[in-house]
Order: sequence, then structure tokens, then C-alpha cells
Amino acid sequence: MIVVMRPGASREQIEAVARRLEELGFKTHPIYGQEKTVIGAIGNKKALSSEAIINLPGVEKIVPILKPYKLVSRELKDTPTIVRVGGVPIGGRNVVLMAGPCAVESEEQLLTTARSVKEAGAQILRGGAFKPRTSPYSFQGLEAEGLKMLARVREEVGLPVVTEVMDTRDVELVAGYADMLQIGARNMQNFRLLKEAGATGKPILLKRGLAATVEEWLMAAEYILDSGNSNVVLCERGIRTFENATRFTLDLSAVAVVKENSHLPVIVDPSHGTGSWRLVPPLARAAVACGADGLLIEVHPDPVRALCDGPQSLHPENFDLLVGELVAVAQAVGRTIGFNGRSQQDIEGFAGEKTGSGPV
Amino acid sequence: MIVVMRPGASREQIEAVARRLEELGFKTHPIYGQEKTVIGAIGNKKALSSEAIINLPGVEKIVPILKPYKLVSRELKDTPTIVRVGGVPIGGRNVVLMAGPCAVESEEQLLTTARSVKEAGAQILRGGAFKPRTSPYSFQGLEAEGLKMLARVREEVGLPVVTEVMDTRDVELVAGYADMLQIGARNMQNFRLLKEAGATGKPILLKRGLAATVEEWLMAAEYILDSGNSNVVLCERGIRTFENATRFTLDLSAVAVVKENSHLPVIVDPSHGTGSWRLVPPLARAAVACGADGLLIEVHPDPVRALCDGPQSLHPENFDLLVGELVAVAQAVGRTIGFNGRSQQDIEGFAGEKTGSGPV
Amino acid sequence: MIVVMRPGASREQIEAVARRLEELGFKTHPIYGQEKTVIGAIGNKKALSSEAIINLPGVEKIVPILKPYKLVSRELKDTPTIVRVGGVPIGGRNVVLMAGPCAVESEEQLLTTARSVKEAGAQILRGGAFKPRTSPYSFQGLEAEGLKMLARVREEVGLPVVTEVMDTRDVELVAGYADMLQIGARNMQNFRLLKEAGATGKPILLKRGLAATVEEWLMAAEYILDSGNSNVVLCERGIRTFENATRFTLDLSAVAVVKENSHLPVIVDPSHGTGSWRLVPPLARAAVACGADGLLIEVHPDPVRALCDGPQSLHPENFDLLVGELVAVAQAVGRTIGFNGRSQQDIEGFAGEKTGSGPV
Amino acid sequence: MIVVMRPGASREQIEAVARRLEELGFKTHPIYGQEKTVIGAIGNKKALSSEAIINLPGVEKIVPILKPYKLVSRELKDTPTIVRVGGVPIGGRNVVLMAGPCAVESEEQLLTTARSVKEAGAQILRGGAFKPRTSPYSFQGLEAEGLKMLARVREEVGLPVVTEVMDTRDVELVAGYADMLQIGARNMQNFRLLKEAGATGKPILLKRGLAATVEEWLMAAEYILDSGNSNVVLCERGIRTFENATRFTLDLSAVAVVKENSHLPVIVDPSHGTGSWRLVPPLARAAVACGADGLLIEVHPDPVRALCDGPQSLHPENFDLLVGELVAVAQAVGRTIGFNGRSQQDIEGFAGEKTGSGPV
Repeated sequence: MIVVMRPGASREQIEAVARRLEELGFKTHPIYGQEKTVIGAIGNKKALSSEAIINLPGVEKIVPILKPYKLVSRELKDTPTIVRVGGVPIGGRNVVLMAGPCAVESEEQLLTTARSVKEAGAQILRGGAFKPRTSPYSFQGLEAEGLKMLARVREEVGLPVVTEVMDTRDVELVAGYADMLQIGARNMQNFRLLKEAGATGKPILLKRGLAATVEEWLMAAEYILDSGNSNVVLCERGIRTFENATRFTLDLSAVAVVKENSHLPVIVDPSHGTGSWRLVPPLARAAVACGADGLLIEVHPDPVRALCDGPQSLHPENFDLLVGELVAVAQAVGRTIGFNGRSQQDIEGFAGEKTGSGPV
Repeated sequence: MIVVMRPGASREQIEAVARRLEELGFKTHPIYGQEKTVIGAIGNKKALSSEAIINLPGVEKIVPILKPYKLVSRELKDTPTIVRVGGVPIGGRNVVLMAGPCAVESEEQLLTTARSVKEAGAQILRGGAFKPRTSPYSFQGLEAEGLKMLARVREEVGLPVVTEVMDTRDVELVAGYADMLQIGARNMQNFRLLKEAGATGKPILLKRGLAATVEEWLMAAEYILDSGNSNVVLCERGIRTFENATRFTLDLSAVAVVKENSHLPVIVDPSHGTGSWRLVPPLARAAVACGADGLLIEVHPDPVRALCDGPQSLHPENFDLLVGELVAVAQAVGRTIGFNGRSQQDIEGFAGEKTGSGPV
Repeated sequence: MIVVMRPGASREQIEAVARRLEELGFKTHPIYGQEKTVIGAIGNKKALSSEAIINLPGVEKIVPILKPYKLVSRELKDTPTIVRVGGVPIGGRNVVLMAGPCAVESEEQLLTTARSVKEAGAQILRGGAFKPRTSPYSFQGLEAEGLKMLARVREEVGLPVVTEVMDTRDVELVAGYADMLQIGARNMQNFRLLKEAGATGKPILLKRGLAATVEEWLMAAEYILDSGNSNVVLCERGIRTFENATRFTLDLSAVAVVKENSHLPVIVDPSHGTGSWRLVPPLARAAVACGADGLLIEVHPDPVRALCDGPQSLHPENFDLLVGELVAVAQAVGRTIGFNGRSQQDIEGFAGEKTGSGPV
Repeated sequence: MIVVMRPGASREQIEAVARRLEELGFKTHPIYGQEKTVIGAIGNKKALSSEAIINLPGVEKIVPILKPYKLVSRELKDTPTIVRVGGVPIGGRNVVLMAGPCAVESEEQLLTTARSVKEAGAQILRGGAFKPRTSPYSFQGLEAEGLKMLARVREEVGLPVVTEVMDTRDVELVAGYADMLQIGARNMQNFRLLKEAGATGKPILLKRGLAATVEEWLMAAEYILDSGNSNVVLCERGIRTFENATRFTLDLSAVAVVKENSHLPVIVDPSHGTGSWRLVPPLARAAVACGADGLLIEVHPDPVRALCDGPQSLHPENFDLLVGELVAVAQAVGRTIGFNGRSQQDIEGFAGEKTGSGPV
């Protein structure tokens, strides 16, 4: 940590800051410049929030030197983490396709979608039972009933399931049915939910908050790892900016930044990231090209009649066409994708594995 | 609702859209322009999310005409709502000061602060027992112990208490101690928490999310009103922008926009909005000048040693000076402020009233 | 400047960086931490852009310690600069009102407006002759003809004139008529225009760019001061954010941040900042309350028929009402405002002074 | 255009708005809803800015139905425009690589870079002679001398040249040397410069402004097309957002949005878009995968000693490696890239063509 003193800070002020730092267990290294003095402080940052220093007289600002996250960082662990969801590894050479409807609407809708996306190459089924909706008057999801449908369709089709949990009180319930728990963008800094979901030991899909920096996103993941669960997959889904031609601004640079700083896998959701099914294919291709470990894509058998997010849902035929394009892009960057990659060496089988099957 | 058809949409497509709208209970009014056709649709919007139409062939976009919120809107109720917190009315002629430490750290710290802010003119005591922190390694609050300190200090000093609730599981506990429940910015779209907190019937302080538009913020309030509780006070606390000279960008225009569109009171938190105690006084004055119904200000007896948000906390002496300035600004805009205003006609007494005193 | 080395940087890399810094004239102070090494570098920053170091092997990042601006900073000059425009001082105790139509449309329109705003208390007349318009199909201003109208109305009414210059080729022309040159938000980083306008010696009104940080804005002012002209008044006019209830987000914190870091006066334009005349009064009051040295307000005698920015233009009657409110707010913060303040000690007379009167 | 009336607007107000619209040449279609009335207005939008209506009593808002741009739109011209720069077509099947140093520093630096990027596959040489710099103390470019170097190196190496013009007064000079004129992000709404550069008839590379929506960017291009020059190539280079892990946020969705709405080619600048050479390769691959017609990449023979933007400049060896990756991605999306694609059917030869060679 570097403490920058204001120009004109007195020697007394500088010494008082140094003394306080030493009381807090730091070794100090003052450097006297012509205009300003800075004090290098070496020691255990955990012992101190910079807040204890910033208000001392004469202090202008604190410059942190160490990253605020530890467990998620490449500095701690340099090899990529592989997260297994019902036997499907995420974070290896294969790019994983997660697909399905925004919301579970009926068993038939879910089953039709699941079959078509599996046929096209998807390896994980997505579907919302609990839906966070901006309006209290919008469809809020089938809740427990939706979870049961997900479990039955999983049995029938043979795809592991990811679904969102919104409330600490539902964590146990959802974990009883799902193979992976999704923390939505609006709950990225719902720290209690992070801890509770983390404590289940289930793989967690952690969506980036609309206004979260990459650093804050990694700090949210740190909460989960700190709770003892390192099965975290990050998901970029667009941030809030002034641009309104798209619903959000998909930040693909974040994929590369995460890869540089963390060992966790990172996937991309071009459906929420753009808000328009027409934009999903180009951005899905771009996500694979820049190194994403997977894609989360909304597919609905009848987007015109979808109860949620129809405008951004692909028709199964278009999803199938898209996967064809993605296979080529994945190959161009030295990777495999989806079902077609399942015979690859670093992909384990799913069929034979036992996954959660409802609360006992 | 106006449905805009793409240029070149066929007559069949136009008619299909009109037919679908009529099936959904709308009366339709197509207008054929030279380049584009639009279809006006009149009817009960609740029955339909625009999502059911947007994906029909030939549709370019949907333009909503009615506001998505009802219960919070001035169109429904044109007189300002007055929310009473432990006898203190918010939303009337008097501008209410809520002040106290970011986090409750000890009973002594809280008591000292409470006495000094009351002396200066504050009418409500703030203090966090449950703290949402970006880092799992930061101080997370005293939790239940902190709530008890808040209740004891309330008895001692005679100020009603506002404190944050972060988890649906804690709503009952917190409501047992607090006079007003705060929903933090990071939980503004934690819809389950909104419903649960709303259901207590307690006054709710709803902070604006970092990336929330005013419309989304009002929709969050709509969740609470829809749960039967109209005691909602909105709190502007800064939004995320590219500017990094301040921690957030305090959006004072939002105060005026809320006033124009909603009957709910709106207050401003210049401490979080700027992140720096030096900027609190000018922005607090500005908030009062532009019509805020109250201020939420962090005050700490020893900001240098604060466990949370020291950099943005005012020393009690500075808070006292600030209140002096605010009294003058309030008067200039035809209002009273804080304790000094308590003899005014539209302010009710607090001392004699019974407020919550812990779970029985 | 602090050079932060990556974790695991070798001693050779550290020494190579130190050597390079010394070649560039710096004295170096390496501090070896447990995880990272940092090198403090003291010397003349002007001699070096950090770009010369950042790419050396093992370097993680550079942390600047000194501010990048010099001439505009309070560190160089701690007393507020007073800029005189046709005898009206900006930056003293009096808050200056600049008002007039967005665009000069006719001599009659301008004259009517000028008379009414002067009557209400305005001290400077604004009016655009060259208009930057998003669309090539919008009214682009009366150009030279508009300048002549401005000059004639100035003679008639006795108010100095501020008007925008958009092109280096027009600087001499505009400077021949105007008392103050405005650099618009879209040209804030048109560095050639800054230099050219600065070189006239005329007072410059420098609007903040839509996407400019306060630091970049001050750097733009630095260009003008560096060209030898310190008569710069800064103007906050809203930044681009995700919020769309207002046209831009007026950043009043920036006023306080500028005051803390610079000696230059700063005014606020609530008309462009909000885009709606209904929001102008509350935000104008807020601007004065938080310390702005002036206001730039669009007034049009017939906003419904304005050729430009009608929606944000006040009718003269509303402007008159607003000034009444502002006088009270200014008084509450220890200042005077507009014409009413002209008898104050720190305000010099305008009538007797000679101002520019067209090219000779 | 749809005029939405406020709830409670009187029949007189509605009729007055309709009358005014009819005076302005519109045919009106009022639709009376239960809560609000809207008036559809059909006619020539050019004749009217919505500003003429918005301030009429009872009007709540105006909803435009037609796009504000015409000449750049796919609605006018559905086939992609191919822009030829010194014989290199942009906008066809081949993805064009433009590469070179941020700033021209010396003839040797430029020549070395030009040779290496051509060898690697680049088809156009970039290099700044006039440099817009945030600080007046940074290197501002070699100006006219730099232009001459660009022309000499073009002769020597055989690559057409793109370089920035910042000032209307330099347009003729720069156009005398360059094959393509670049309008930088900070000048995207310098409308005079757009017109002046457009009037040369030279191909224009129009960078997106830091705070420009896609619509505003297309409107800036409309200025150039309206000046009679349709040789415009758009360049996405990152927008300003709250994220600070990258210098800007590269908005690749914008590429797809432009493709959907305009016939103009669009390229991507991952160097400025990310600000870090480490992030250039993944984002360059992503740009090609999502449909960009070209890339603009900064390459410097000795990034450590670059006078400008060293941190984001690729070393020639890394550029060469990157091109190899891009060839594979281009192929995966059915395109060719760079020099390797020059034998393709839709690519014309460059060597034999005469390009501009300095002012005569």
C-alpha cells in the first residue's frame, strides 16, 4: 500500500501517518519528493482496511498495490479450474453450450426445448423456475413446480440442469433439484445468498452485475470460494451503459481480463447481453473467438408466445444453425464445442453419473 | 401501445399482428405511413407483456404509451404521500435529517453519535448492523448484537432508528428492532426481499440501485406497494458512471424526476453518493435546494478509526456546521429542516409516541 | 510515480526498470514487499510519459502521484481566479446569470429575449450563431449573420455576449463580435480549437465533454492556460450515463470537485444538463446551493416555435420566477446573484466599459 | 411520429396539437385511449423537428417512428457499400488489416513497421502525424513532416496510408498525402470537420465517439454522405463506461447493430478499445468472428520506447502471430483476411494502382 500525502503536508503529519501504520503492523518506507511525500507500507493488508488511514490529517489518497482478491486469483493458483456440472467439465478445451428457455412454462415446453438443444449440441439445460422480474405484474415463474419439471426433463433427456436461486430461503430447495445454481446479475452482491449458495458445495454460475467492475465480480466469487466452494463459473451478460441500441453492452474484454487475473472458467450470455435474438449469433461467435469457456443461450420453441424474454430467444432451428457456426469458430481457436466435442480426451461422460434428483 | 412494423412489412403481416392483438383483447388502430405502418393498440396492458408481439414477423419495435408503474404514480394519486417513522413525518414541508454511523461498532460509539446528531438537529438515527461489503474480508457488521444496541440507544436518546436488512430470513428480526427498514442499493432488485420487507408494514427506505433507471427504481417501489405497504421513502445515493473523481455520481435530477412522476417522498444520501466527507456539505445543500424531502448522512465520532466508510463520514462538529447551512437553504426554498422545524405545523411530535422495541 | 512490478518479477527485471528510470533522470527507491516490489521514482514528470516504462518486462502498472495538470491547479495558485466578461466578474461572490436563446433565430427574437432576461437579472446574453447539431437536416444556425445580430443587440440592451465557436477558421470572426467564446461539449477535446480560441486572449467558456472526467476537463483547460490565456470559465452541462429520464446526467459533484482542485470559476448549464425546462428550476437552485459561480440558462420567448432545443427552454416569465428563487438560495449560501448583486463590493460596473464591437 | 398526450389533456389541447401538425403538413390520426390519447402524424419528417410540438400544452412526449438517418441506412440501400482505399476494397468478403504505429516518430520507425506489418499481411498502413493528446505536455505528432514520411514509406513499401486529420485547416494538406482520412473519436461530432473531410471525396475512416450511441455515429456518417461522399468506413473503438480494467469498453455488439441498419463497412480498433496489447489478440479474433470488415491495430517496433500509446502497441512478432490466428477465424466465418486473401475474386490489386502522392 502506498500512502500519498497532500502537497504541503507537515513533517509531523507524515510521521503521525507512519506511526499509525507501524502500530497496525506495517513496515514503512517514506519517499520524500519535491512536491509530495509518499509512504510505502509493507505488511498484511487483511489486517487493515485503507479506511483507517485515509482520514488522517495530510493524507491525500491511498494506492493499493495488492489485488483485493486472493482465492480466485491466478497469483494463488495459476492452472485453470475445471468445474464439473453433472459430469460436464467447464473450463477445459471444450466450450460448453448451456441452452434452454428463459422461464420454465410447462413440462411440454421444457421437454421440447431440451430435446432440440441437446440434439443441436447443448450439454447443459437452462430454465428459470424463480424469475426476477422488473415488474411485479410480469410472470414470476412456476417456482417449486418448475423445479420438478426441470428434474423430470433431466431424467428424460439426460442433460444436467442450471437454474437460478433468488432467495436464501430457497437455496436448499433449489439445490435439491439443480446440478448448478445460478446467481443472477441483480443478486451478484447479495452476499448472504453467495455464502448460502456456496455452502451447498454445488457448482455456482455467477452472473456479473449490471454495474459491477470485473474486480467487484471477482470479489463476489471470492465470497463463494471463501465459503469453501471453488466450483464457480463466471458469466458475462452485459453491463449498463448509455448505448440503447442493445439492452445491455456485452463486455467481451471482460472475458480476457478474467482469464488474465483468475483461474476460474468464464462463459458468456449473449441473449441477455444483447436483448435481441438477431444479435445472438454474431456475439456468440465473438465470445468463443475471444476465449469464453461456454455460452448460455436462450432457446424457446415458440418465441412469439414466450412468457419471458421472447425477443432474445432463438428458435431451435436457429440455435441449430448457430451451433454449426460455433463449431467452426471453436476449431479456429483450437477448441471443441458442445456435444460434438464430447469424445475429446478432456471431456468426461455424463450419462453414467449420478446427479441430484430432488430433496430426499 | 404502438406496434411499429418494419419498412416493407406485408399486408398479411400487418393483419396478423392486428389479429393477434385483438385476440389479446386490444382494440387496434392501424395507421399506414409512406415508409412504415404503425398499429395503435388500446386495452389492458396488464394482460399482455409486449413480448408476445415483438417477435411476430414484420414487427420492428413496440412503443409503450402507459407508464409501467401504477401504484407509485402521480397519475393514480396526485397528493404527496407522507411517511411517518416513529412519529417523524417524511414528505411534508419539513426536510428530515437521518444521521449516524455507517456501521454500529459499539454501544458507546453509537450513543455518542446519536446524542451529537440529535443535538445538531437530526430526527432519525441511522446505523448498520448488517453490512453488505464488497470484500468478504471486511467488517460485516455486529448483526443481532448491533440491532440491540440500536434499540437501547433509541430508548436513551429518543430518536427513531433506520437500519438495513439484507436477507429475507432477517426481516422479522430487524423489523422487531427498527422503526424503518432500509433496502440497500445492491438489493434494490432483490424482489423477494422487497416483498418480505413490505409485508411487515414498516416504513421502507428504498435506495436506488447503482445501475437502476428512475423507472426501474419506481418499479421496485411498486413491488412494495403491491404487497400492501405504501410507506416507502425513496433514497437517491449515486449511480455508476465513468467519472472516478467521486465514488458514484449523485443524480440530483432524479429527485425532480421522481417528484414529477410519483407521490412518494424522496431523500438523498450524499455520503455514499460522493464517497468523500469534503463533498458532503455542498451536495447536501444542493439536495435540499432541489427539493429532497430528507438527507441520510454518515457521521462518526472518530472517522479515522471507523470500521466502515470512514472517508465519507462527517465528524459531529462538521455535521453541526452543515445543519446550520442547511437550515438557511431550506428556508430559501420555503421549507424547514430537522429538529428546528419540529415546532412547525405539519410536524408531529415524536417523544410521546410508542415505537417498536424489540421482538416480543 | 510508483512503478508496481508483477508478482514474480525477477531481480534482473527490477534492476532493469530502475536503470531505465535513472537514465530518464529519476531517483529511484525500490521497496521489496513479500508479494510484490514497487519502485518509487522521483523527478520531473514532464520529461517522461509513463508509457516509456509500462512495457518493460515485469512491470504490472504505473501509479502517478502528481496531478497531470499544473496551471489550472490549486496547488499552483490557491486564490480563486476572477474572469471578467465585458466587465462582469465571474468567480467572485456574485453568481452570474447567463441567459438567452439556444440559437439566434432573428434580431427580434434575440432582442425580445435579451431585454426580458436583463430585466429579470441576467448579466450576460447567450445565443448560438454556429450550432453543432446531431443531424445534418436540423437548423445549423445563422452563422455570421447571427453574430452581427448578437453585436447589435448587445449595443441596444447592454449585455455582454457569449457565443459558441466550432471551427478554428471562425475563431477570428467570432472573437470579433463576442465578449466570451464558448467551446461546446462536443469540442472539449478539439485541441486545435482550444489553442486557437485561447490565443485570442478572450475569456473562454469551456463546456465539459459528455464523456469527460473532471481530470480530462481540467486538462482541456490546461491547453488554454498553456497558450497564455487564463480567462477560462468551466461549465458543467451533464454527462452521458445509462439514465434516460433526463437527456444527460447533471453532475453537480463535479462543481465541488473542480473547486477543490482548481482556481478556475465553474458554472452550470441545467438546460442542456436535463433537457427539460421543467427540471431547470430545481437543478438551477441546486447548482447555486453547491457553489456554482454562475448559470447558463436557455430562455426563448416562444419555446413552442424554437428552432433548437425548445423542450429545454424556459419562457421569460418562468425565468423571472426562477431568478426570484435563486436570489434566496444565493443569499442562503452567502452569495449574491445576477443583476441584484451588482451593487456589491466585489462586482465592477459594466455599463461604462468598452467591449468588443465587431471586427475593425 | 406519434405524439403522446398527458393523461388529463383536454380535448382543446388535443385539437390544438392536431391543428399545429396539420399546419406543418402532417396528416393526423388521433387514437383515444382510456388513460391517454396519442396522435399519429404522417408526413415529411424533414420538415419538422419534434421540438416544434413537444412544448405545446398537454403534450407528454414525441415518439419518432422513422430513423433519423437516411443516406447511410439499409432502408435506402440494401447492398453493402465497398469502399476502396488505394485499391484495397473494404466491405467485401475480405477482412482488411490496417496496422502501424500510433504516431509517426521517424522515417526509420515507420519504414520498419510498415515492412513488418505488410509482411505479416496488413493491407493498409496507419500512422498519426497529427495527434490529439489529453495533455498539452505530451508529444503532439510530427505534423507535416510526419505526412511526408507516410508518403515516402508508402512509395517504398507499397501500402496505402490512413492518417488522422484534426483541423479543418489541415484537410487539404492531409488529403494531399493520405489515401484515407481518419476522423478521430474526439472529433466524431466536429461537424465542420466531417463536412470538410467529406468534401475531399477521399475515403473517410469515422471513429465512434467515446460517448456516442450507434445512432449518433450513423448521423455523423450521414453528414459525410450528405456532403456527397459515400466512401465512409465506420470504426468501433470502445466507449466510456464505469469499467476501468480496460481503457474503454469495446462494444462489439455495435458491429452487428451497424450491419443490421447500415450499408457502410465497419471495422474495429482493439488497440484503443482495450488499451492493452495483451487484450488485443482475443478482441481482434472476436471482432472478426462477429462480422467486422477490418481491424485497425497499433504495431510498434519497440513498444517500450514508443512516444504514444506504447502500452497498447503490439510488437511486430506478436502481430505476425495474431494474423495467423485471424486467418483461421476469418475462414471459420466464411471470409478471408489480409494479404492472404488478395488472390480472392472480390479483391482488386493494389500494386498497379495510382494513389495520391502528395500535393502538386
